[in-house]
Amino acid sequence: MSASVQIIGSYLSPYVRKVLVTLGIKGIPYEIDPIVGFMGDDRFRELSPLRRIPVLIDEDVTLADSSVICQYLDDRYPSPSIYPADIADRARARWLEEFADTRMGDVLIWRLFYQKVVLPHVFGRISDEAVVERTLSEELPQVLDYLETVAPREGFAFGSLSIADISVATHFRNAAFLRISIDATRWPKTAGWIERVLATEQFAALVPFEKVSMRTLPKQHREVLTQLGAPLWSTSHAAEAARPGIMPI
Amino acid sequence: MSASVQIIGSYLSPYVRKVLVTLGIKGIPYEIDPIVGFMGDDRFRELSPLRRIPVLIDEDVTLADSSVICQYLDDRYPSPSIYPADIADRARARWLEEFADTRMGDVLIWRLFYQKVVLPHVFGRISDEAVVERTLSEELPQVLDYLETVAPREGFAFGSLSIADISVATHFRNAAFLRISIDATRWPKTAGWIERVLATEQFAALVPFEKVSMRTLPKQHREVLTQLGAPLWSTSHAAEAARPGIMPI
Repeated sequence: MSASVQIIGSYLSPYVRKVLVTLGIKGIPYEIDPIVGFMGDDRFRELSPLRRIPVLIDEDVTLADSSVICQYLDDRYPSPSIYPADIADRARARWLEEFADTRMGDVLIWRLFYQKVVLPHVFGRISDEAVVERTLSEELPQVLDYLETVAPREGFAFGSLSIADISVATHFRNAAFLRISIDATRWPKTAGWIERVLATEQFAALVPFEKVSMRTLPKQHREVLTQLGAPLWSTSHAAEAARPGIMPI
Repeated sequence: MSASVQIIGSYLSPYVRKVLVTLGIKGIPYEIDPIVGFMGDDRFRELSPLRRIPVLIDEDVTLADSSVICQYLDDRYPSPSIYPADIADRARARWLEEFADTRMGDVLIWRLFYQKVVLPHVFGRISDEAVVERTLSEELPQVLDYLETVAPREGFAFGSLSIADISVATHFRNAAFLRISIDATRWPKTAGWIERVLATEQFAALVPFEKVSMRTLPKQHREVLTQLGAPLWSTSHAAEAARPGIMPI
């Protein structure tokens, strides 16, 4: 495989990370334009009608939803597959992906990461501590209670690393940026599962780029990532000013 | 095929309709428990962790998301497929499904149908006319502008009837319940496309059940649908009182 695919989206987005891990599992080379979705210019808007990240560009195919992108990558580059072979397990894995993308996205991204990181550092606004507090005390424990009913005692959810493991674990990297970890005395299966998934080389390879992105403002991401040797795409879709998105990611 | 699958969910939900049309295309027999998601009892909650409809039960597989269900049905009962054969077209179809499920769901269901039908008739509350007005004057035209860029001039989006046509058109049945139609002078390709999709036998077969459901309160749906010969499942998951859901559908 010689040609690269192009990705638009920040290393701090759980949905971008989901796609990058999938590319890593499949050994597909890629270049990345590391913008946060809120900072996209008009050309970005044309590529991503809802201003979501990640965007994938693979020759004549442009896609702007992480689930659609992962399925496309598996169709186009089938081995190794990130979907379980058994039809029922495949459906269960897709359900966990949906749970992660929507419910965990609401709780961990839109009510925690957005409040604590995006609002102050992208939009220069103050976070709503009441939302954060209620999310930590009520909604996040509900999410973890559910995950504990599906978490495997060892290994991954469906044998080899699949879209289910990736989609759920990616949100806990963002939780880690906020110093939120899983209480292993209360949710032992989930804590062990997520630790195993995040320890895979595909997740681990992204950690340096995430850390440096967390320490700098969005407009500096490209410069600091260049210094770290990230596989940057020379094209930038960054606008000067932040713009609110239409919808979650 | 002798055994039926079971569906939980109202004929008024665009996401339930999407699954029923898929079942119709594939000729899969089914039984339906026609509850609205907000009225599910504790057993429903166990089947659908986020209180979403539709739920599909197929022997030992229980799924609670329309996209996951449709993909499962296509995996389990492959012919005829509702996904385009070409990999790039398949991804484009899935993107349109995602656009329909999320963005059209926000606009047509959560800001129009929910306000005009669910709030007054399920929760006994007054709709917010400012939300309705803004949605009709700004957001719905934006959705239609986008659809006009992807709508086929004739036939369906990708040859035979696919998940893209189904996912987009299903929302316009709910629009029709509110007497909202597509202005064919402003969005001619979209108007023609949706008309062709809704005229298919799979959509048309559901219209009598939708109409009678629109005319009656949720607790009467089972009785009036029985009189019309709908394929009802004898098991009911209806609770006495309405409960707000965690998330959209």
